[in-house]
Amino acid sequence: MAVYRLDIAYDGSGFKGYARQQGMRTVQGELESALTTYLKTPIATSVAGRTDAGVHARGQVVSFEHEGEIDLVRLPRAINGIIGPEVSVLDAMRVKDGFSARFSAMWRRYRYRIDTRPSPDPLTRQTVWHAGRDLDVEAMRAAAAAFVGEHDFSSFCRSIDGKSNVRVVTEVSLVETDGIVDIWVQANAFCHQMVRSIVGYLYDVGRGFSDGSLAHEVIAARDRAAVATVAPPHGLILWEVGYPLPQAERQ
Amino acid sequence: MAVYRLDIAYDGSGFKGYARQQGMRTVQGELESALTTYLKTPIATSVAGRTDAGVHARGQVVSFEHEGEIDLVRLPRAINGIIGPEVSVLDAMRVKDGFSARFSAMWRRYRYRIDTRPSPDPLTRQTVWHAGRDLDVEAMRAAAAAFVGEHDFSSFCRSIDGKSNVRVVTEVSLVETDGIVDIWVQANAFCHQMVRSIVGYLYDVGRGFSDGSLAHEVIAARDRAAVATVAPPHGLILWEVGYPLPQAERQ
Repeated sequence: MAVYRLDIAYDGSGFKGYARQQGMRTVQGELESALTTYLKTPIATSVAGRTDAGVHARGQVVSFEHEGEIDLVRLPRAINGIIGPEVSVLDAMRVKDGFSARFSAMWRRYRYRIDTRPSPDPLTRQTVWHAGRDLDVEAMRAAAAAFVGEHDFSSFCRSIDGKSNVRVVTEVSLVETDGIVDIWVQANAFCHQMVRSIVGYLYDVGRGFSDGSLAHEVIAARDRAAVATVAPPHGLILWEVGYPLPQAERQ
Repeated sequence: MAVYRLDIAYDGSGFKGYARQQGMRTVQGELESALTTYLKTPIATSVAGRTDAGVHARGQVVSFEHEGEIDLVRLPRAINGIIGPEVSVLDAMRVKDGFSARFSAMWRRYRYRIDTRPSPDPLTRQTVWHAGRDLDVEAMRAAAAAFVGEHDFSSFCRSIDGKSNVRVVTEVSLVETDGIVDIWVQANAFCHQMVRSIVGYLYDVGRGFSDGSLAHEVIAARDRAAVATVAPPHGLILWEVGYPLPQAERQ
């Protein structure tokens, strides 16, 4: 069995999330179906980030095992021809045995975009959240610093019984350009709805609804009820996933 | 009669162009219908750039006359509430009598985007042309210089009988970033399909199909048959329109 890695991008608007669900249109469902058609054998994939319904990806990583050779130059074009314009295979490579898109990943990086300008922008409406109000970006930035480090993020997780919500966040940074606030969040891993809950909280700080100086206390509460706002999914893009290089490199 | 100016943006994907056509879904049709509903009197508009089917706008300008007062703070939100997410009124202002979005305009500026990367990008597929091949941007840039100045652009116009195709082009510049080639074109005015024909020609130069050193001759031919390729509409955005400031300013 050889292990293959696919780097993919998708517009999540028309999908019920990444992960396969019976009877639902999902990215995993479409991708595995296309791979199965092309390789003429059932293909089961592992993924770096199980994005929610409506969330997009620019640098999602998928892996699968397959017996025998694959023409890796031809595969992206072939799959893209089967799968339609909302999903794109950007690159395909053979990687070392034992590589798993999910378990080998060292970090995930997300980008969330908020449009603060009063009128909506038709050209970015599928990938940017139009909040349509001024935000105090300095206050948001100060609050963002509280997230960095190892914490139990239960206040920012849609809980799954019995699972740990401890994660190591390495970056929450904000960049404002022409009325668009970009929020970059990087961590070793994320619990369910964690990025959108962090963004929702920072948005509440930015509009003066929450006191950002209490961010440490909100985290320490480990209580989902401490966070009022979850930002909508369409502003979120899984941007990049990091792997230990020798293992994830093209063989 | 007071004169009003609207700055608007739209996603042209679902429209048969800007200009009203009987029985077709057009931006002008939707906008005038919304204005007529909101202002409770028939509104006829003038426009800076009559964009083709599928072409987008970020900085389109529209003007109309109306008797009596308009609440200009409320108007953008009211129209945006009627018109749906593909069109957005960014700003509304009263301007000097005699202002016309079409006839007062001094220049129009367009942006065309070409994606040279091999795989399509699902997140930009509505606003960037996925050409999917390497382009010789230096050769394109050299050819682009030939367009600047006053020329008869009949080689680059879908002709309309008897109309002059003489225009003054002030800029054709190319910027390449991460595999995306941005082509900026500015002129006093444009004939029909002129930007897309210039981009199509430069694309042919970039892929080695046309010899860019002959650009002057292609222009001088004044023959539509001299240009083989018209770039597709969805990569084109009407970016900005310039007016003499005292006339177009908020009153």
